Amino acid sequence: MLSNSRTRRIEWSDCDPAGIVFYPRYFSMFDASTAALFEKALGMTVAQIFKHFDVVGIPLVDARARFINPVWFCDDVTIETTVAKFRRASFEIHHRLFRNGELAVEGFETRVWVGRHPDDPARMKSQPIPQEIIARFQG
Amino acid sequence: MLSNSRTRRIEWSDCDPAGIVFYPRYFSMFDASTAALFEKALGMTVAQIFKHFDVVGIPLVDARARFINPVWFCDDVTIETTVAKFRRASFEIHHRLFRNGELAVEGFETRVWVGRHPDDPARMKSQPIPQEIIARFQG
Amino acid sequence: MLSNSRTRRIEWSDCDPAGIVFYPRYFSMFDASTAALFEKALGMTVAQIFKHFDVVGIPLVDARARFINPVWFCDDVTIETTVAKFRRASFEIHHRLFRNGELAVEGFETRVWVGRHPDDPARMKSQPIPQEIIARFQG
Amino acid sequence: MLSNSRTRRIEWSDCDPAGIVFYPRYFSMFDASTAALFEKALGMTVAQIFKHFDVVGIPLVDARARFINPVWFCDDVTIETTVAKFRRASFEIHHRLFRNGELAVEGFETRVWVGRHPDDPARMKSQPIPQEIIARFQG
Repeated sequence: MLSNSRTRRIEWSDCDPAGIVFYPRYFSMFDASTAALFEKALGMTVAQIFKHFDVVGIPLVDARARFINPVWFCDDVTIETTVAKFRRASFEIHHRLFRNGELAVEGFETRVWVGRHPDDPARMKSQPIPQEIIARFQG
Repeated sequence: MLSNSRTRRIEWSDCDPAGIVFYPRYFSMFDASTAALFEKALGMTVAQIFKHFDVVGIPLVDARARFINPVWFCDDVTIETTVAKFRRASFEIHHRLFRNGELAVEGFETRVWVGRHPDDPARMKSQPIPQEIIARFQG
Repeated sequence: MLSNSRTRRIEWSDCDPAGIVFYPRYFSMFDASTAALFEKALGMTVAQIFKHFDVVGIPLVDARARFINPVWFCDDVTIETTVAKFRRASFEIHHRLFRNGELAVEGFETRVWVGRHPDDPARMKSQPIPQEIIARFQG
Repeated sequence: MLSNSRTRRIEWSDCDPAGIVFYPRYFSMFDASTAALFEKALGMTVAQIFKHFDVVGIPLVDARARFINPVWFCDDVTIETTVAKFRRASFEIHHRLFRNGELAVEGFETRVWVGRHPDDPARMKSQPIPQEIIARFQG
């Protein structure tokens, strides 16, 4: 399965009074890492993917992270991201964030492929993930 | 075990281009809910608790959330928070976020009671949770 | 001119490694304060106001803040907000944030009343502020 | 005077329900741009600079931004940053954020060089900016 690796500098805005990354920020970093993985797979930005496939978003139904070691201001971390599993309308993402080569944080997301509800555009409805997309991750 | 309930208005800053709460914000809301629970238990703000007990913070080793229903801009949500379990140096928090009386998000945190490392103030070290604190939650 | 005052607890998520509020958070607090002022004036949430008046948002063209004194974790601050001036399609908001009764931060916003562009829903276009709204602030 | 240019992808976490960047995020982006400029000037990360010069931070006394054109999810923006002026203990930063080559946001910061107060480590005190630092920006 396709994976993506990206490096990110920890910013002042990421850190809390203990001097380390405030943990909800890891979920934001993982969100951007998922976007980067989809962009790598499909050769389009996520904004383009949403438009092309008429999708509202890929909201989460479950998110989890294990915080193994703290990460500090100005650290450069590497985030490795892959799809762990595709289901009909949902998929699982696995993130591993490394600091100095050591696993610092591990993240798990379950996301749903979601479009506007046909009966009510204010609501959202899960949709089957196009085979064309799954094929790109398995290629 | 002591529990706390608080109401929070969903702000523009909480929401994403799909018009719903961006999920890492729930973890921030839960962090503030944990602080509110400790303040209720001990009659001191968390800043005062940290100072009084010489603690650097109560960082997480594990965080998880289940997103059951979306929450929208200007919704008023209620967050109910309780300690699910105390261990020697760690504890588990359980959050339930309700929208219009229905469970919308459920959160789980495992946190550690942490002070400065005696050998190196730049490092942190877990410490036993004072019995005085545990007693206040069980009172 | 109508004004609104609200109190807000400074959260761990608001603060940076220096232990004080990370200044972009003040702009988020001011954004929520502007929303609270509109809700007080019109008796509807901003989400309802946007829907009722067919508005996309009230984006800023200018924002400024003066940071006079630092604000710390667990401080309770009071934010006083008023409209300084209404123009045809824009208006100026003035915020004053107090800590222990002393002015700590002062904020200034120039915002525009914006709807969907009639020729292209992906674009936005300024619109005259309804007199009905201005009257409510002057009442 | 030295300047720095960096490119940044607009993330889902940066954007609001109108689909554009939530304006306080620009101030966070500018904060990271100031850090990048100092790193370019001194060949050290800001964390190393703070430690090397015994500085707590470079907090702002004034921040302003003009929002000229909206910026959207997945846009790649370029931020050009320079020091507009050094004073004894403060300095002014100027940021220009470009989208597709057009100026979209302009930012202005006045920051202070701050250390721990000699009489009270919980307080902060402005200090003269080392000439060694100013020289690096003028070199």
